[in-house]
Amino acid sequence: MAKNWKSKLHEIIYEADTRAGKLFDVVLLVLILASIALVMLESVDDFAGKHSDFLVTAEWIITILFTLEYFARIISIRKPSQYIFSFYGIIDFLSTIPMYLSFFIVGSQSLIALRALRLMRIFRILKLARYIGESNNIMRALKASRIKIGVFIMFILILCTILGSVMYLIESDKESGFTSIPRSIYWAIVTLTTVGYGDIAPHTPLGQFIASIIMILGYGIIAVPTGIVTAEFATMDKDEIHLNTQSCPSCATEGHHDKAEYCYDCGEILNPEETD
Amino acid sequence: MAKNWKSKLHEIIYEADTRAGKLFDVVLLVLILASIALVMLESVDDFAGKHSDFLVTAEWIITILFTLEYFARIISIRKPSQYIFSFYGIIDFLSTIPMYLSFFIVGSQSLIALRALRLMRIFRILKLARYIGESNNIMRALKASRIKIGVFIMFILILCTILGSVMYLIESDKESGFTSIPRSIYWAIVTLTTVGYGDIAPHTPLGQFIASIIMILGYGIIAVPTGIVTAEFATMDKDEIHLNTQSCPSCATEGHHDKAEYCYDCGEILNPEETD
Amino acid sequence: MAKNWKSKLHEIIYEADTRAGKLFDVVLLVLILASIALVMLESVDDFAGKHSDFLVTAEWIITILFTLEYFARIISIRKPSQYIFSFYGIIDFLSTIPMYLSFFIVGSQSLIALRALRLMRIFRILKLARYIGESNNIMRALKASRIKIGVFIMFILILCTILGSVMYLIESDKESGFTSIPRSIYWAIVTLTTVGYGDIAPHTPLGQFIASIIMILGYGIIAVPTGIVTAEFATMDKDEIHLNTQSCPSCATEGHHDKAEYCYDCGEILNPEETD
Amino acid sequence: MAKNWKSKLHEIIYEADTRAGKLFDVVLLVLILASIALVMLESVDDFAGKHSDFLVTAEWIITILFTLEYFARIISIRKPSQYIFSFYGIIDFLSTIPMYLSFFIVGSQSLIALRALRLMRIFRILKLARYIGESNNIMRALKASRIKIGVFIMFILILCTILGSVMYLIESDKESGFTSIPRSIYWAIVTLTTVGYGDIAPHTPLGQFIASIIMILGYGIIAVPTGIVTAEFATMDKDEIHLNTQSCPSCATEGHHDKAEYCYDCGEILNPEETD
Repeated sequence: MAKNWKSKLHEIIYEADTRAGKLFDVVLLVLILASIALVMLESVDDFAGKHSDFLVTAEWIITILFTLEYFARIISIRKPSQYIFSFYGIIDFLSTIPMYLSFFIVGSQSLIALRALRLMRIFRILKLARYIGESNNIMRALKASRIKIGVFIMFILILCTILGSVMYLIESDKESGFTSIPRSIYWAIVTLTTVGYGDIAPHTPLGQFIASIIMILGYGIIAVPTGIVTAEFATMDKDEIHLNTQSCPSCATEGHHDKAEYCYDCGEILNPEETD
Repeated sequence: MAKNWKSKLHEIIYEADTRAGKLFDVVLLVLILASIALVMLESVDDFAGKHSDFLVTAEWIITILFTLEYFARIISIRKPSQYIFSFYGIIDFLSTIPMYLSFFIVGSQSLIALRALRLMRIFRILKLARYIGESNNIMRALKASRIKIGVFIMFILILCTILGSVMYLIESDKESGFTSIPRSIYWAIVTLTTVGYGDIAPHTPLGQFIASIIMILGYGIIAVPTGIVTAEFATMDKDEIHLNTQSCPSCATEGHHDKAEYCYDCGEILNPEETD
Repeated sequence: MAKNWKSKLHEIIYEADTRAGKLFDVVLLVLILASIALVMLESVDDFAGKHSDFLVTAEWIITILFTLEYFARIISIRKPSQYIFSFYGIIDFLSTIPMYLSFFIVGSQSLIALRALRLMRIFRILKLARYIGESNNIMRALKASRIKIGVFIMFILILCTILGSVMYLIESDKESGFTSIPRSIYWAIVTLTTVGYGDIAPHTPLGQFIASIIMILGYGIIAVPTGIVTAEFATMDKDEIHLNTQSCPSCATEGHHDKAEYCYDCGEILNPEETD
Repeated sequence: MAKNWKSKLHEIIYEADTRAGKLFDVVLLVLILASIALVMLESVDDFAGKHSDFLVTAEWIITILFTLEYFARIISIRKPSQYIFSFYGIIDFLSTIPMYLSFFIVGSQSLIALRALRLMRIFRILKLARYIGESNNIMRALKASRIKIGVFIMFILILCTILGSVMYLIESDKESGFTSIPRSIYWAIVTLTTVGYGDIAPHTPLGQFIASIIMILGYGIIAVPTGIVTAEFATMDKDEIHLNTQSCPSCATEGHHDKAEYCYDCGEILNPEETD
């Protein structure tokens, strides 16, 4: 079956059913992880000082490869705007441009804005979520109980607001760190969630008494989200519909059924499956 | 059907079935959140110093609006005492008066008592609970297991009393902070609930050994409340009776069924439902 | 049916089925809580300094009342040794004698040994456990899963031993506080159980990397005891056999059935139930 | 039935069905715990300084006993390589040699490498796992949910990478300790898992606000692994196949059925069961 190079490129980049498509995905995965490692290393002052040459070279290599990927994605899709303005399209764009911008604002390379932009590359890690099987199951359990969890978080926030305000009254004159209500609420959240940094801690007996109540409350009500999600997992419908990695060559919609021949969103004909 | 202005006002203020009633609820919600934000900002010294004029003006606007709401609630109900001495009635009163009181005790505006009263406004946040759907379900699961949870908390307290006293004996001569039994019990609660501030921590090997036992105990018995609540959630009757937001025009009782025509508490005729 | 004063006294002290027996229990409960409060107050240096007269007087009142209770328990039981050498008998004895001992070792009233003895009174709190209904249910669920929980704790200890030793190697030359393997194991327990005091914390990147792994491990495997206990609660047989508070007048065994006429342990005739 | 000394030795060392085999296991257990206690004591500087003679003597006794055990294991098995290159075989070898090595590198007895090797003995604790009944059940529940837990951990790591990077941007100029992205990710893990050391803590209001969100997230999503494992425990097939402690005299494979006469792995005849 004859296919032009655009549809072949589309199949390689957007899908993972063919050998070339799988290889592309693996290479992209490695590239993303490498780019994230670079951003991390750059933030370590000791390392960035000694190996700045290596970092700049590596940044350029990754930037050029990401640029190629970005244009390939735009070329191979029939309606480029569908990709460009999608969530991943914007992430890809923002994580590619920082090095080019450094030409224009060359005098102030250490600008905080540029550093922030370079950090956008971290969000490429979200693309890994696509490769995680079973995540659908967890997502479905979370989605099914999202209202209950939202209500629970609202309840926690109301509780922390009241408890934080009460603690502010009790401990405000001391050196305990309860200097304002927002800070006291922050402390109440730190305590209720059993994190307990210790940077703010009650010093008066009454404050410690109320803190004890908050802790036991937190220790007790952690059972509530657990109970909600567990019940959801137990009753969750176990059979899943198998979706493949095909993506519409026209509008980039994903999640097509194995036997789908047309895009369920725009009616375009999908790339026919290859047989290995 | 003819309705006088009092019953119309009642329907707007106490119910949320009509468009006007919904609007009133949204406006009140915004007001409550704004008043809480004000109390918080006031407690931040940096902000309160710079913007004291803004804070006083905003306080007065909110106080006047709350005053109007308070009187509207009293006028529109047939038996005002039912509202005035209800839980929310008292909260509304206490969160409205502080600014008026500042006239009478004008020489000592920074009085701690007045600040405490102004803080009462924080409790208006409890009104938000009304807007939280699904909270009934969580409340029912908690209520069904309240005896088991009470027993569990009693057990935790007995355990912490004994462990705290033992640690007081072991660590009392050191600089660890175990200066009295109540403080040691506070530490035991901090440790058992896995909060772990670190302001008090054992320094002797024996103390660290016993602390390790407490931690593993706390890590293990967190399973007990979770098990209780999860079992309750799993067996909980899932079908709920739909209750609407109507409230009796005479005695302000809430929780009427959709088709109720008379108040189940005092027999008064309820406002007939509007059809949108 | 004629009863001598001894069996009447036995019924009052050891049982809670009659009005007098219930009253005795309530008075004893209050006394125990008061004696525990006294021990706590004594340990607070500020309070003990100012109110030493009050403390000594209150101690003597409680000591005399406990002494009367102790002798009444011995007199009213047919085989006193059964009570004297029981767990509660020993606790009662040890929590009664400290004030008498202070006559003999009068020159060194601040002896640490005496203070420790006075602390024994804290253990009287265990008697409260008798008054806690529903605790049987929780105990049964814990007992049913005690082997699984024991295995789990053993697993945690093995894990902490290995991880603590590894961290000792990595961080031992630094100022992080990993000065010996037992201390490193203590740190591993503090971290795995998500307590996190912060008195010992890794400073090297490698140490922080391994610490991160331990934390995620601890965060993940907390699910194991919860899963065990929850499953036990769910499958637990809900019907309980009602046991009353009768206690054998001869050997003090408890847990007799409602209709029991003879002690299941020694065959003695039990006090017949009164009808109110 | 006639048995040569090798097969008798094999039954004693590798199996626990006979009285001699059980005794050997108990002795080995005590030895392992003693050797681990030694390694721990050696790391405590106070103790090691005072009792170095005792430590060296005890080390040699344990080393010689471990050596004997090692050779006995090699001799009594038909294919020694099966044991030598097994996991436990390597652990046994590495935990036995350090004292012998101290002859050769005698001038540098305090070498870090040697200390690390001696630490290998800690891993002998893994052998205790064999004696833990019921661990199979827990392992099976964990194994059945290992993919879900893996996905969950991956999700946590992605979340922590993003949140840590965001916190690095917000807090990087302050004295809060967010000096690099890896360190910020470490902080995000410490916070999300509710460990909360407090060595790194946000100081800016915005940082504290985001930290609060991370804490509530962590508090909420702890429900996910719990839900997964609990559901697994609940549906887990409860009937277990009883496996005995026999081990093949030829290839040391374990996990034979009670009635097995031949090794399921190599077909060798197993030691016939003794009848007590």
